[in-house]
Amino acid sequence: MMSFNAIEFIEKKRDCHKHTQKDIQAFMDSIMNNLVPDYQISSWLMAAYLNGLDDDEIMYFTEALAHSGAILSYPEGDKIIDKHSTGGVGDKTTLILIPLVASCGAVISKLSGRGLGYTGGTVDKLESIPNINMHLSETEFKAQVKKIGCAISGHSHKLAPAEGKFYNLRDVTSTVPSIPLITASIISKKIAGGAYGYLFDVKCGSGAFMHDFKSALLLAKKLVDVSKKLNKKCVSIITDMEQPLGEWVGNSVEVYEAIEVLSGKGPSDTRELCLVLGANMLYMAGKAVSIDEGMEKCIKALDDGSALNKFKELIEAQKGDSDVINEPEKILPKASYVHEIRSDREGFLSRLDALLIGEGLRALGGGRLTQDDMIDLSVAIQLLVKIGDKVSEDEVIIRVFYNSEKKLEESLKYIQNSWTVSDCAEKRKLIIDRIS
Amino acid sequence: MMSFNAIEFIEKKRDCHKHTQKDIQAFMDSIMNNLVPDYQISSWLMAAYLNGLDDDEIMYFTEALAHSGAILSYPEGDKIIDKHSTGGVGDKTTLILIPLVASCGAVISKLSGRGLGYTGGTVDKLESIPNINMHLSETEFKAQVKKIGCAISGHSHKLAPAEGKFYNLRDVTSTVPSIPLITASIISKKIAGGAYGYLFDVKCGSGAFMHDFKSALLLAKKLVDVSKKLNKKCVSIITDMEQPLGEWVGNSVEVYEAIEVLSGKGPSDTRELCLVLGANMLYMAGKAVSIDEGMEKCIKALDDGSALNKFKELIEAQKGDSDVINEPEKILPKASYVHEIRSDREGFLSRLDALLIGEGLRALGGGRLTQDDMIDLSVAIQLLVKIGDKVSEDEVIIRVFYNSEKKLEESLKYIQNSWTVSDCAEKRKLIIDRIS
Repeated sequence: MMSFNAIEFIEKKRDCHKHTQKDIQAFMDSIMNNLVPDYQISSWLMAAYLNGLDDDEIMYFTEALAHSGAILSYPEGDKIIDKHSTGGVGDKTTLILIPLVASCGAVISKLSGRGLGYTGGTVDKLESIPNINMHLSETEFKAQVKKIGCAISGHSHKLAPAEGKFYNLRDVTSTVPSIPLITASIISKKIAGGAYGYLFDVKCGSGAFMHDFKSALLLAKKLVDVSKKLNKKCVSIITDMEQPLGEWVGNSVEVYEAIEVLSGKGPSDTRELCLVLGANMLYMAGKAVSIDEGMEKCIKALDDGSALNKFKELIEAQKGDSDVINEPEKILPKASYVHEIRSDREGFLSRLDALLIGEGLRALGGGRLTQDDMIDLSVAIQLLVKIGDKVSEDEVIIRVFYNSEKKLEESLKYIQNSWTVSDCAEKRKLIIDRIS
Repeated sequence: MMSFNAIEFIEKKRDCHKHTQKDIQAFMDSIMNNLVPDYQISSWLMAAYLNGLDDDEIMYFTEALAHSGAILSYPEGDKIIDKHSTGGVGDKTTLILIPLVASCGAVISKLSGRGLGYTGGTVDKLESIPNINMHLSETEFKAQVKKIGCAISGHSHKLAPAEGKFYNLRDVTSTVPSIPLITASIISKKIAGGAYGYLFDVKCGSGAFMHDFKSALLLAKKLVDVSKKLNKKCVSIITDMEQPLGEWVGNSVEVYEAIEVLSGKGPSDTRELCLVLGANMLYMAGKAVSIDEGMEKCIKALDDGSALNKFKELIEAQKGDSDVINEPEKILPKASYVHEIRSDREGFLSRLDALLIGEGLRALGGGRLTQDDMIDLSVAIQLLVKIGDKVSEDEVIIRVFYNSEKKLEESLKYIQNSWTVSDCAEKRKLIIDRIS
């Protein structure tokens, strides 16, 4: 290991100088050997937050994070594709995309986290399916990818362990919303996952980490630029998260909606987003000569049942109860009670705040405040109208599925304030931009 | 105690917002109750370093640091004066000023630190006097100030304990050279010491913390501005520290030089600086109607033996061997060997780098690298010529007094490079500016 002087390293960033690859590697090595106390890491984090990291520095930092643990590897020629969403409310696209893209011949592996904050994660959602194993060993994971072309599993602590350390420290030192640090955090996990190319769904709006288009665009571009520097294929799609995606927000209900879309049905926005993301993934994987051809293949796979069948294979491979495909309403956990919210006037829905709907779900018990919180997979919010839709007086616009009156009451504080009906409103554009 | 959200507090400074007094007090209370982990303090320190603190924020922070522990108090009307030097090589002015100013009727109390880095502190230097007690209790300290008008003691951990915590953390998180943080650190200790007014000797040059005039001026002004906001009398004098002060650099030898100056003799630069600082202190204490009158009083006290006599009183009050006044060469510890450095040419001394002389002393054993290092009080460097002085070929310009050949060798690496003789050189101006 190289000798490392933490004070000089921090000074360098403090004084706006550029770190070398050697510097950053020595920093990481020292951290992994527990030689750098947290107070020095956090001082550097704030200096990096305020003074920035250029693309080279982000690349060095990303690589150092990725290589702090094991890197998954696949046989040469297996062009493994991965996707990542920056997170939003009602975002069940992973559940749909993995089987969809795999059913079109691409090989796709997805390591997901649990949710933290107002929304459950992919792991939580899939755990609504009885007996499903969301913690595959590396061997199981790779064997499944080889056998059926796809797998979804919870993150292993062996992959990019330094990233976990930085993530936790950023959370408590006010250094989270930094584009360079976010970029390194996201890409390092993709690299550790062994993929050949990634698709990033960068969400933009009230329910997203990036509230405005400008910052979403910056992140989307940075993800592409740094991935390219690291010789990875990469596309970023910026998509709307001003209102939640689809009809259902919750954990088990998002599995339900995924099955609907995989059956060629489901809400048009969720279907549209999955088709666009899926088309880009097929093109990236070399399974379509153009995005248009990718789109055609995806439409066909949703409509002819092959995508749904792949989802069934995935559930069975991961020991879950695949009857969920045929009888989701019977198999998935459901909340006991329902509360309806009606419009007090005629008009058009002009606002449906994703953040407030997300907070409403968390208050029902469907999201976590701390990593150790238990989550209620059955609670749900159903959105019967979306922005731009016509609404009659007294029409039901939102249904809340709950298990506790007290939690419902807390939840309604958010949900009641989440929507507005006006004289006129336009439908929102879902796909905002594409960066490659 | 107010509830305190560390993450929001850090975000505020990160995003360049202004802290309120309530914010800063809650931060300090939470720190003193061990509710804020170091990694959050250091993240805030870096944000404060990079985004700055305005004069109000510095004032709130200074007060909060000062009031984190006990505040010394003196009877109303006792206009206690304190002085502080930002630190330099050969700076023995405290040893001279305290008795000098007290002998002219001002009441002066001085809490000093040990030295860290290339120079011993006042406490170390005075400990060259056999049996002297440099750790007075609060009661002893105040009783002595009342009885003889002056006292010098090591810092108590009870005074401004939070300042100590911040100081140690800044040292290891690269957040030391920040004018707002330095200002708060310095003034908080003065406030805790209970003084009515302070004189700051802001050193400027290679051997000082502030290398250039611009940053020394910024600090000098900030010290005055914030002190005034806190209703304290304050004067800053900016003085040269490009070369060491006086003839002697070391610990026991600086006591020797102090006795020389207090006897109306000694090197002209040390005498001049003490007269200027002393005159300002007398004026501030209301013991002189003008700085000129203060100067006259100081000259008289040095020349008629009253200042020396006051030093004797101080030593006796603190249980030291006051024979040191009459026989310093006999009483003070002396190093065993001497090494002479001679000029290889005729000319004028054009450079005598204070930092390198300071490092040379540390290498001899006369300074500390860590707070726990033992210090050799007897080693010394004698400067026989100063910048601008004429030098003949083969003339001795520096004498090094040492106890270990190995340490001498290490020390000479610095000292040999510390000086230059050129065809011409001007004397340096010692008193650079005065801010009040």
